[in-house]
This record gives sequence, structure tokens and C-alpha cells, in this order.
Amino acid sequence: MYRRKYAVIGGDMRNLYLVDLLKKDYQYVEIYGFDKSGKSWALKNPPLDYILDGAQVIIGGIPLLTQNNYLTMPLSSERLTFSEVLEKIPEGALFIAGKIPETIVKQLESRKVKCVDLLEREDMAVLNAVPSAEGAIDVLIQELPKTLMDSRILIAGYGRIGKILAKLLHGFGAEVWVSARKHSDLAWIEAQGLKPIPMSQFGRYVGDMDAIVNTVPALIITKEILEKVRSDCFLLDLASAPGGIDFKAAEAMGFKVKWALGLPGKVAPLTAGDIIRRTVYNIIEEEGGGL
Amino acid sequence: MYRRKYAVIGGDMRNLYLVDLLKKDYQYVEIYGFDKSGKSWALKNPPLDYILDGAQVIIGGIPLLTQNNYLTMPLSSERLTFSEVLEKIPEGALFIAGKIPETIVKQLESRKVKCVDLLEREDMAVLNAVPSAEGAIDVLIQELPKTLMDSRILIAGYGRIGKILAKLLHGFGAEVWVSARKHSDLAWIEAQGLKPIPMSQFGRYVGDMDAIVNTVPALIITKEILEKVRSDCFLLDLASAPGGIDFKAAEAMGFKVKWALGLPGKVAPLTAGDIIRRTVYNIIEEEGGGL
Amino acid sequence: MYRRKYAVIGGDMRNLYLVDLLKKDYQYVEIYGFDKSGKSWALKNPPLDYILDGAQVIIGGIPLLTQNNYLTMPLSSERLTFSEVLEKIPEGALFIAGKIPETIVKQLESRKVKCVDLLEREDMAVLNAVPSAEGAIDVLIQELPKTLMDSRILIAGYGRIGKILAKLLHGFGAEVWVSARKHSDLAWIEAQGLKPIPMSQFGRYVGDMDAIVNTVPALIITKEILEKVRSDCFLLDLASAPGGIDFKAAEAMGFKVKWALGLPGKVAPLTAGDIIRRTVYNIIEEEGGGL
Amino acid sequence: MYRRKYAVIGGDMRNLYLVDLLKKDYQYVEIYGFDKSGKSWALKNPPLDYILDGAQVIIGGIPLLTQNNYLTMPLSSERLTFSEVLEKIPEGALFIAGKIPETIVKQLESRKVKCVDLLEREDMAVLNAVPSAEGAIDVLIQELPKTLMDSRILIAGYGRIGKILAKLLHGFGAEVWVSARKHSDLAWIEAQGLKPIPMSQFGRYVGDMDAIVNTVPALIITKEILEKVRSDCFLLDLASAPGGIDFKAAEAMGFKVKWALGLPGKVAPLTAGDIIRRTVYNIIEEEGGGL
Repeated sequence: MYRRKYAVIGGDMRNLYLVDLLKKDYQYVEIYGFDKSGKSWALKNPPLDYILDGAQVIIGGIPLLTQNNYLTMPLSSERLTFSEVLEKIPEGALFIAGKIPETIVKQLESRKVKCVDLLEREDMAVLNAVPSAEGAIDVLIQELPKTLMDSRILIAGYGRIGKILAKLLHGFGAEVWVSARKHSDLAWIEAQGLKPIPMSQFGRYVGDMDAIVNTVPALIITKEILEKVRSDCFLLDLASAPGGIDFKAAEAMGFKVKWALGLPGKVAPLTAGDIIRRTVYNIIEEEGGGL
Repeated sequence: MYRRKYAVIGGDMRNLYLVDLLKKDYQYVEIYGFDKSGKSWALKNPPLDYILDGAQVIIGGIPLLTQNNYLTMPLSSERLTFSEVLEKIPEGALFIAGKIPETIVKQLESRKVKCVDLLEREDMAVLNAVPSAEGAIDVLIQELPKTLMDSRILIAGYGRIGKILAKLLHGFGAEVWVSARKHSDLAWIEAQGLKPIPMSQFGRYVGDMDAIVNTVPALIITKEILEKVRSDCFLLDLASAPGGIDFKAAEAMGFKVKWALGLPGKVAPLTAGDIIRRTVYNIIEEEGGGL
Repeated sequence: MYRRKYAVIGGDMRNLYLVDLLKKDYQYVEIYGFDKSGKSWALKNPPLDYILDGAQVIIGGIPLLTQNNYLTMPLSSERLTFSEVLEKIPEGALFIAGKIPETIVKQLESRKVKCVDLLEREDMAVLNAVPSAEGAIDVLIQELPKTLMDSRILIAGYGRIGKILAKLLHGFGAEVWVSARKHSDLAWIEAQGLKPIPMSQFGRYVGDMDAIVNTVPALIITKEILEKVRSDCFLLDLASAPGGIDFKAAEAMGFKVKWALGLPGKVAPLTAGDIIRRTVYNIIEEEGGGL
Repeated sequence: MYRRKYAVIGGDMRNLYLVDLLKKDYQYVEIYGFDKSGKSWALKNPPLDYILDGAQVIIGGIPLLTQNNYLTMPLSSERLTFSEVLEKIPEGALFIAGKIPETIVKQLESRKVKCVDLLEREDMAVLNAVPSAEGAIDVLIQELPKTLMDSRILIAGYGRIGKILAKLLHGFGAEVWVSARKHSDLAWIEAQGLKPIPMSQFGRYVGDMDAIVNTVPALIITKEILEKVRSDCFLLDLASAPGGIDFKAAEAMGFKVKWALGLPGKVAPLTAGDIIRRTVYNIIEEEGGGL
């Protein structure tokens, strides 16, 4: 593989692992924002000029910015705004991060820097489904007072995570019900040895579950649905904001409920870092590789 | 379920099981063309007038016609042309069969008979993937001199049958390689614990397989590919015409090769009949049910 | 089922669930030692005389006694010695608990009370293998920085827990190696699609694992073995005392190591309580049922 | 591996594959009795003197003798009695075959030839369970009019074949019931996600099965049991003589019934030959290797 200069600026443990993996691929990598990571080689942040000079690929965090509009740098004691970085990025470089605001995309493009948002990549989403599903298994083992074996679990939605999670739970010997809208999805669910629920009849099936796991980013587990759910049923939401459970109602009604986001970074940061690496390589390949 | 009159005219064992299953659902069913089936209740074919009078759903074989343009009736000693049937079909009826020629569709529609072709139904295709994959397992167990466990098998294509077959083979402990064109399919293949092969690199991987199973209806296993295949590798084609293997070349080169079509009807006629039943009910529902 | 009087005295969450399950089976149950459990029906401990009067089955904790020789009652604010209980136990009753000291067995038998130790029951051990293995999966998901999929994991021992854990890990897509002593076990391991390691060659295989899980109650992961293990390999011991890992050496060498005991009660107390219930019924049946 | 002289005399396709595999291991192999196998290198049988001269390991068929007391040589046009072979076997050689009659064992031992019966080897039996179970899957796919998915199948006995077959069927999505005598086996069956049946209640469960597969070499499916079985249930016996089904009663009652023996040699002769090879090596190792 052609050797390039990467600048990794901020991000969480996933980016720390990413740095390691890029180096193992004999890439030239400079880093900023990992001074609290405990790694001896990351204790001091070199000047940004040095880091960005000649960098062909710049990688930020997922998401790129915190709620206060600083760069996401949970493993650093410093704070950095994007404008401090912007003008030092070389023309023609590739800028990769998660959830990049539209204004930043425009600023970068006006400087002839190509922007790619990791959260819009299908390949990354598919690969992340495995660590997400493993993380969900982890939550379910901890929260259910029963073994997964012989538990009755309903998964709302048969997308990427739903498919992998259903397969894993089935492997544990759980009775897995999956709801979906499309007839062909329902046929698939059945063909996998799972129990299909047409979305239109969702309410009829929620009554006798040990856990309900939502994977659909739309309000599905409404107050009306919750009224039919057994009081000791555990509710787990894996969908990104706004989520699919009426949390306020669920808590008022006394349900044990959990909203688990960012599972890949939490339960498998090395794999998550590797997924970023592979996605970055795919992006470079698609861009022609000729950075 | 609302009770309707069905006329099942011809078709193979699948339709014979279909008749049984419709009766178990308390439907009124008349049949024609099963006089050699050995069933006591099918020994004589009643007059067509009687059978079709008042029939709301008429079901033919898959395919509807033989190569000689008679109705497909392998379980009958009689021969029947479609024109003998056509004029007796009541207006407003629903006509369901497989591979219905365009001319017949037009004739029926001019008589206000709605036509549905089973081979164009997605639900039927998905449900049939299971018996097809089981049939393929059966062929592989018989043809390979090894156990499936520890065999190395390549599946070309990750569509309906490819997905189910890969999963079953994996369950036997085979080493399963799957080729696909799309990046997201390759990520899925990997996420299922299978070994992905980008279609562009297909030729590089064919060399050390115990079996190659094609599921893609396009010439993939060409003479050039075959030259790289181990001489004792078994070749199985599951794709509909024209198939995906250069059979002439394969046989000339001494390969053991098999083209297996219509597996659901062969290895699981009862399930295949049940799939027709369910598809027929789906069709009726979609038509508003108000026949 | 014949209705009997049970007295459940102490024990952890498992016994609390056991009480619930016995009541659902319409048994008469009195309890002592759950006043801190938060259950409204357990806030006050009735007099022991009342509880034990006419009791046919008395159930204690697992283990029966704490290290200070009090009854195990983690969900109570009280303390109780066994001698306070002993003389109130009716003649002819059945006394069931875990790890009952020999002196207590003798005291009870001299009073014509039959004693059964739950930790010596094969049925209980087999049934507990599932929650133990699920608990081990939970630990592994949390401790490994990678997904279980694509991890390389070695399980020392192919007994009850080893078998179930290997199967579950295989279902996640991990590469599972299992060591065993007997030739027939090694053949079985292979027949399950796992990778067998003869115990005599154990040291040769430990070098490239992401995790090593010991299930054998004998020192297997010695200092000599540890010297061959990759420094980032996670070590998990599931064996009861004295365990199978040289913990002192492992920690001195900087390994991440964990000794996980009592997993069923921790990750699946309801299932663990149900397993006690079923074992208690088996014991009663074996005793002739005629209490 | 030390190079030895092997004489393979008779046996079926398994022994033909065995010869191939031994040669691939750089062993010196002479053969007798494969002149009809179609292999160019086997067309002529050399003189027995030449074949046995200096042979350290002599391998016969499984079973060694036909019912007429000739050597089993289905791939030969010749006939041979054991006495023609006996006196040519060198002193100190190892004689390996299946079902060796006691009289032959004595004759050989009086000549200082050590005898080992393959059918008494545990390692061979375990390894053969996989091809046997795959063969049973093959029979079931062919004989059942339904897919294995959604079929309800009862396996009598949870020994080697029962365990592997149950696992494979479960992987197909069948509902698998397994009967066993021991409580610990029943707990295991349940822990694997299968449905346990205590042998004492066998008769209660046979009524609604799509297939019943016997693996126990004792009459289990008696006339009394058969009277409770659904008339379209398929009966498969995998047990060696005398089998476990009352075949006479079953046929009189109109059941579809099959007794499948020697499946490994039929569906996977290469694997079966390899299993013989591995067992032969194990035997040599146990004998000290110092032939």
C-alpha cells in the first residue's frame, strides 16, 4: 500500500486504535488530542502546524464536534475549535470525520479539501452492525434476570442490526420475534427460523415478552403499546435519536428501560477502530487513490 | 376465512398437495388432471363445465403449458389445450399459474379474468429459497465424496438461495466462500462469518474448492474460469435458464457437473404446495378479497 | 403437585426468586432472612418457630454458611447461627442447601432429618452450565477490545461449561480452540467444528490467542505457560477454587486476568432460582415424594 | 512419519480412498482386490506373496468376511478365502480390519500377528458419527415431503450419532425432540436448545412427529409404540443389528420405513477412508510405533 501522511485529530478510543492500526500498515501518522490516553507516545500534543503540514488524510472524531462546538477530544486535557485547525489543512487533502456540519463542509470545500462523513457510509454501517449487536447481547445478559436461552425477545425492525442481533439471540436458544413492514422481509424472517410479526399487528404480540429491542429510528413503542407490555419486560432502544421508545411514558409506567448508543466504541473499540481504517481505505480507493 | 370455489387444473405433486391443504382450510375445491396420482378421490376427471362453473379462483401448473403447448398435467393420462378451458372460465375469476404466456394473459383479460403469474411473486420466491437450499444440500451430500464438514465450497451469488444455502452449509461446518458484486453484500457476507470474494477477483479463488455452486442466472463459470478449477471439484448450477456454467466446456474437461432445477417440487412437494397456498391467499388479499 | 410446606431460610437473590416460583406452583412457603430485599412481603422476619413448624422441606443458602459461620443471609439485616435453627427443624423433614459442613449433616441426621447438598447434584450442575456460559460471554464482550466475531479464543477443558461456552462462542463467529485430555473428547471437539488441542501440546497453542478461558479446577495456566502467552491476551478463570491460573504470576507479568465465580446467581438469578426449584423437586421425587 | 509397508487386501471404496491417502503420506502401499474399481493402477492383482512380503500393516475390509466367508472384495472379480492369505502374513505384522471373527484372531495371534478390530475403536466411532449424521440428513430430505425446516423430528437416543444429528437438524430449523434415559442427558438435551423426552414417557410423544429416527440398538419402536404414531410419519433406523424398530409390524401397518446402515461409506467414502487412515495411525502409535 502506498504510504501517506495521516493526521488524526481527536476522537475517542476508536481513533486511538485506528492510529495503531494505520502504523501497523506502515503509514505515516501524526496525532493530536490523546494526551490523557495513557499511551507513552501520546503524552504531548505537537504543534498543529507540524501535524498538518503535508497531511494527505485528516481524520477527526465521531462526531466531529461536541455539543459546545469544540472538536471531540475526550482523551485530551486541551480544547480546540475547528477554526484553529481549518486554515492549516493543506489544499487537496481528504477530511474524514463523523457528523460534519454543513458549514464546515462548505468551508473545507472552498479550500479544495474533500469531505467525507463516516456516518453516511453504508460499508461502515454494515460492519458496525456486528459490534452493535454484540453490545446489545451484553446489555441483555446483564439486564434480564433470566438466561437468554428460553427468553422470549421481540426485535422491532429487521435492518442491519436487527438481522445480526436476531441471529445471535437465536444461537443462544432464545425465542426471537421480529417485526417488519415488508412482506418479503417477513418471509425472510421466517426463512431464518425466526418468528415474523407484521408491523400492522405489532400491538398484538408485545404482551408476553421478556425484552423488547427497538432498532427503528421512529416512535414505535408508544404509550398505547406500552400499556400492553408485561410490567417486568425490559426495554432496550438501539436506534439513534430520537429513538423509538416513548421514554417518558415508559419510566412513568415503571419499566426498566435503556437507550444504548455508540455500542461499537464501548464494547469493541479495537474492532471499531479497524472498521474506521477499512472505511478510510475504501474512501481513498474511491477517490482514485491519487491523493 | 371466507369460503371460495377453487378449480385446480393440472400441475404436479405440488398442486396435489395444494388441493389437500385448501380442503383442510374448508375451501371448496374441484380438480382436473390428477387421475394417475393414485389418490382415490382423483381417479376420474369430472366434466370441465362442472369444475369451472362458479369457480372464483382457477389454478394451473408451474409452468402453465408444456413445450407442446398442452396444459402441464404430469399426473394425468389426458391431454388438454388451454383453449378448451378458456371459454369456461367465469368472468371476474382469478387465474393463477406459473409462466403464463402473454397471449393467454390477453385472452383472459379480454374476458375480465385477472391473471397472476406465480413466478413473478417475490413472496413465493423467498419462501421457495428454503426448499431449494435443502435440495442443494441433498445433492452436495450425495455428490461429494467427503462430508460437508471440512469441505470448502464456493457459492456464486448472494441472493435468496445463496443466503440460505450459505447459512446451512456453515451449520454443517463447511468452509463457505461467497462471491458478490456489491461492497455492502461483501460486508454482509463477512458479518455472517462467511468468506467474501469480490466478483472481480472470482478467478483467483476457484482453484481449491471441493464444490462450486452457482446461483446467478448469467454465464459466470466460463471456460477460462474452469481452467483454474481443480479437476475433482463438483459443479452445481441452481440458476434458471440459461444457467451460469458453460456446461459444454465443463463436460469436455471432465468435470462432474449437475444442473438442478425445480428442487422445491422434488424434495419438498408438500412444503412447495403450502407455499403456493400461502401465495394464493396473499394474491386474493391484495385483490381485495372480494372475489 | 402435592402441596408441601417449605421454609426458605436465607440465601441470595436466587432463593428470593425460588420463593416466588414455589408460590406460583401453589406451594406453602414461609421465609426468613429477606428483610432487605425490598419486597413488601418480606420486610419482617416472623419467629423461627412459626416458620419451621410443620415444614417438610427446609432450604438454606448456597453456601449454607458464611466464612464466619453464620447462615448466609445477604438480603437480611439480621444474623443467625445454625444452632438457632437446628432444634426447630421437624423430624422427618428434608434439609437442602449448598456446601453443608459434615458436622451439620451429622447433627441433622441424628435428628432424622435427611440432608442433600445442592453442590453435589449433577442435574443442577448441568443446568447451571448455561447461565455460567452466558455470564462468561458477558465478561468476554466487556473485556476484549475486539468483537467476539473474529476473535481467537482458547477454552481449557471440555466439561459442562466448556461445551456450552464453546458452542456459544462458535455461534458468534469466534475461532474456538478447546483443549482436552481424552482422545474421544478431542474427536468430539473436532466433530463440533471446533479446533482440538491435546492437553500434552497445550503450551504450543497458547501463543496467539485473544483470550484464554480456563474451566478446569487444577493449575493449568502456570508461569511457564504464561511466558508463551501474548501480553494483550485476556485470561478468564471459571473454575472453582483453587482455580486454574497462577494469578500471582499473571498479575506480576501484567496480564489482564479475571476470576469469575457464581455467575448464574449474578447474571441470571431468576433462571438460577428456577434451577434450584427443579433440583428440589427432583430430590423430593427421588426421596419417594412421601415427605 | 516413518515409512512402512502396507498391504490393503479388499474392502470397499473406503479402502480405495485409504490407499490414495496412505500414498499421499509417502507410505509404501500394495493392494489386492480392486481390479474392478476402474483405477488404472489397480487393474491387475499382483501375486499375494509379493504383496504380503515384508508388509508391516495388513488392512482388510469392514467387515473382513462376507456372509459366505470369503474376504470382502466388492471391487474385485476374484474371490479369496482368508486361509489363502493367512500363512503369507509376516510374523510381527499388525492386522487391521472390521468384525474379525474370533477364530481368525486366534489363528493370527498364534502366528504372532497382532489383531485390531476397527469396529471396536472409540475414536473411529466418534469420527464416523459426522458422515453418519450427514447421511441421515440426506435420507430425511429425500423421504420427507416437507422441508426439514418446520418439521418435527424425534431422535431416539442421545449417543454419538444422536448428538450430531440433533445439532444438524436444529440448524435446519427443525423442531427436534430427543429421548434419553439418564437425567443428566436430559438436562444436556435441554441445554442444547432441544426438547427432551424421558425414555419412560416415550410413548406419549410419538404421536405428532413428521419423522422418528432411532439410534439405539434395542427394540424401542415396538408395535405398541407404532400404534400411537401418525400414519404419515417416516421411520428411519440408524442402529446396527438388530435395529430398534419392529420392521415387520411397521410395514404391516403401512408405514414408510428405512433401515440405513453403513452411511459413511455410502455418502462420504473419502472421509470414511480418511477416518480409517487416522485410526490406523492411532493404532500404530498405541502399539509403540515400533513395527
